[in-house]
Amino acid sequence: MERLEKLYEGKAKIIYRTSDEDKIIAYFKDDATAFNGQKRAQIFEKGVLNNTISSILFELLEGKGVKTHFLKQIDERQQLLKKVNIIPLEVIVRNIAAGSMAKRLGIAEGTKLNTTVFEICYKNDELGDPLINDYHAVALGITTFEELQNIYDCAGKVNEVLKEFFDELGIDLVDFKLEFGRFRDEILLADEISPDTCRFWDKNTKEKLDKDRFRRDLGNVIEGYKEILKRMKGEVK
Amino acid sequence: MERLEKLYEGKAKIIYRTSDEDKIIAYFKDDATAFNGQKRAQIFEKGVLNNTISSILFELLEGKGVKTHFLKQIDERQQLLKKVNIIPLEVIVRNIAAGSMAKRLGIAEGTKLNTTVFEICYKNDELGDPLINDYHAVALGITTFEELQNIYDCAGKVNEVLKEFFDELGIDLVDFKLEFGRFRDEILLADEISPDTCRFWDKNTKEKLDKDRFRRDLGNVIEGYKEILKRMKGEVK
Ligand SMILES: Nc1ncnc2c1ncn2[C@@H]1O[C@H](COP(=O)(O)OP(=O)(O)O)[C@@H](O)[C@H]1O
Ligand SMILES: Nc1ncnc2c1ncn2[C@@H]1O[C@H](COP(=O)(O)OP(=O)(O)O)[C@@H](O)[C@H]1O
Ligand SMILES: [Mg+2]
Ligand SMILES: [Mg+2]
Repeated sequence: MERLEKLYEGKAKIIYRTSDEDKIIAYFKDDATAFNGQKRAQIFEKGVLNNTISSILFELLEGKGVKTHFLKQIDERQQLLKKVNIIPLEVIVRNIAAGSMAKRLGIAEGTKLNTTVFEICYKNDELGDPLINDYHAVALGITTFEELQNIYDCAGKVNEVLKEFFDELGIDLVDFKLEFGRFRDEILLADEISPDTCRFWDKNTKEKLDKDRFRRDLGNVIEGYKEILKRMKGEVK
Repeated sequence: MERLEKLYEGKAKIIYRTSDEDKIIAYFKDDATAFNGQKRAQIFEKGVLNNTISSILFELLEGKGVKTHFLKQIDERQQLLKKVNIIPLEVIVRNIAAGSMAKRLGIAEGTKLNTTVFEICYKNDELGDPLINDYHAVALGITTFEELQNIYDCAGKVNEVLKEFFDELGIDLVDFKLEFGRFRDEILLADEISPDTCRFWDKNTKEKLDKDRFRRDLGNVIEGYKEILKRMKGEVK
């Protein structure tokens, strides 16, 4: 598949056109941003790790019947993907309280939640990706109640698969963010699943092995990402 | 019913115990607050107007089959109510975009919504009454998914009744806030419905006839409240 011109450059990836108009190439950069782009850095080889971690997880999910945009990992930095129309929602799934939710609700980070918490944020940098609810999303005209149900069902399924997978690697899947897109008459899981978009805590030490090491200046950022991939490779061989 | 000691003083009302432990008296003050208590004033006779407006609206709703805490208006400032255990949620219903929602979603105030928007906020002054979703409310342990469904159904019914009522008075019911409480095995509509808790716009001039006149320093605050009651009295005789 030939890589053609750049279509869009995001905070973590560059999207390229290909000779097939239904397919794109995503190139994983080393750029890290946090707090709506206010904090920025380069993290050497982050793109390589995220590309591989995300490829393994999307293949795992495809194998479990989740419909995704993933076609194949091309090389160290690139993936071939179905080109979807991204629904401008960040779909967050939480098993343990952390980050913005812990703050919003005034509960301690690390509190085990008695129900899986789903959140949607309006993917809009100008507005700071605000938390919204289903009515807001429908009022904005970006989705329908039926499509949202489909998205929540899929997000719940992804959570079940990933929770079990990481549990076996001695990792708590605290929370994660998903994006979905439309491809013909289907909703596909899109974007990436990586330490940039998940919170991973070591089950025993509770050590953070994800982007919070960058957000909170904990040091050893890339070492966390490497530890995740190392354990995953041990598992999938 | 004898009025006994003060149980609780809120921002707009004082709650008194009565000789019947299932009943309380609510006394409507003239105090006005906004922005989580940062802005404060006294608005002469606001309590009298809100007491009467809310009494009329609760009687109207009871007549339409909505279960409420309302027993009777005692005098200019006081109501006799069933004592409920308030569920710490502000339930907001919106027909037209305004206030915090217009800001959050980046849409113009006055935009007619293509779906009725329901919101819940966690009633917690320290946290600033944050917007939450159903999962948060259940994770906080303050309600269940079933109780929430019951609450949304009731809020929808209240909206249908009030929208029609105010429409006939030449008033757009833009949005409003409800509170619910538990009384034995029932969920009752509680608190108040008044220009303090609703946005009312004149249908023709779009003039605001509610607490936004105070929040936004538009002047003639009490005149707006009086206009609402005048039109309501014309209607109910
Ligand atoms: N399969 C896909 N088809 C089209 N766009 C996609 C696909 N997967 C992800 N995207 C989009 O690619 C863009 C670049 O990704 P990224 O750098 O993570 O962006 P962002 O700055 O929004 O986080 C994002 O807008 C993302 O939604
Ligand atoms: N029927 C009821 N039984 C018990 N408490 C009630 C009832 N109706 C309203 N309340 C509560 O009375 C308190 C006083 O009202 P208000 O002054 O409006 O308080 P706030 O400062 O929370 O807005 C509030 O906590 C409200 O939830
Ligand atoms: Mg991204
Ligand atoms: Mg109040």
